[in-house]
Amino acid sequence: MNENCELCASAGGEVLHADEALRVVLIDDAQYPGFCRVIWNAHVKEMTDLTPAERSRMMMSVMKVESALRETLSPDKINLASLGNMTPHLHWHVIPRYADDVHFPGAIWAHEQREPHAAKLAERAGQLDALRAAIRAAFAESNPEASSNAAKES
Amino acid sequence: MNENCELCASAGGEVLHADEALRVVLIDDAQYPGFCRVIWNAHVKEMTDLTPAERSRMMMSVMKVESALRETLSPDKINLASLGNMTPHLHWHVIPRYADDVHFPGAIWAHEQREPHAAKLAERAGQLDALRAAIRAAFAESNPEASSNAAKES
Repeated sequence: MNENCELCASAGGEVLHADEALRVVLIDDAQYPGFCRVIWNAHVKEMTDLTPAERSRMMMSVMKVESALRETLSPDKINLASLGNMTPHLHWHVIPRYADDVHFPGAIWAHEQREPHAAKLAERAGQLDALRAAIRAAFAESNPEASSNAAKES
Repeated sequence: MNENCELCASAGGEVLHADEALRVVLIDDAQYPGFCRVIWNAHVKEMTDLTPAERSRMMMSVMKVESALRETLSPDKINLASLGNMTPHLHWHVIPRYADDVHFPGAIWAHEQREPHAAKLAERAGQLDALRAAIRAAFAESNPEASSNAAKES
């Protein structure tokens, strides 16, 4: 816990999954509907500060989010990045990219290439409930107890 | 093999390690001495196009490069990214970042923040032989046969 760290102080987005090690959040980014982050709960700086088992757990979670994004949003490309230059608390960006998005084929941190395509963005925003469900299902599958508890609660 | 793909047609940098699945290359980037890439040999687009065992192999290799960079260059931060918007052939950027580099704390794809620090860059370039040795050693450790073959050849 680092008092000056925004990922220690807040969830960092709409929480779609949370366990004792990490959480998956959906980011509210007008240009990138479906932009998710996988955030390690503890204030750790680099992937190699984790144990090998923890690294694997982190990346398997990133892969679940990538799969859910591909299944529900069919992006032209997935971008994965762990930068942390501004917020050195381990987190992965999992970003669905489209040939019509404002930065493509550049990185989302590069200069914009075109105006936003409002109709396409609205269409993708309409797919977010399917994405939420796919991510929750992907994590419930590997954690039958949580799934069973969720079933009891509903 | 895709005839129009530069990572199918060429190594993509100075090869520090190569095996049947992937290769590690050192990039000649004046602003980022030590910038490495881990490139999957086959023309595959996304991480989730690999099998789980292959994903693990890829990420364990990225982690070896990250460790070697931290040990030999002591960067302020490591940046990891798999984008592939321009070259959709699976490859990871493993980038040592410093508070004095031209883009910090932005991504290397963002606009420049300052002039290059020539003395620091020269110092880091002088550490590249140590990096090369550390990466070779990291991959030789996990592959005693390759190590032994290399010893026979030398």
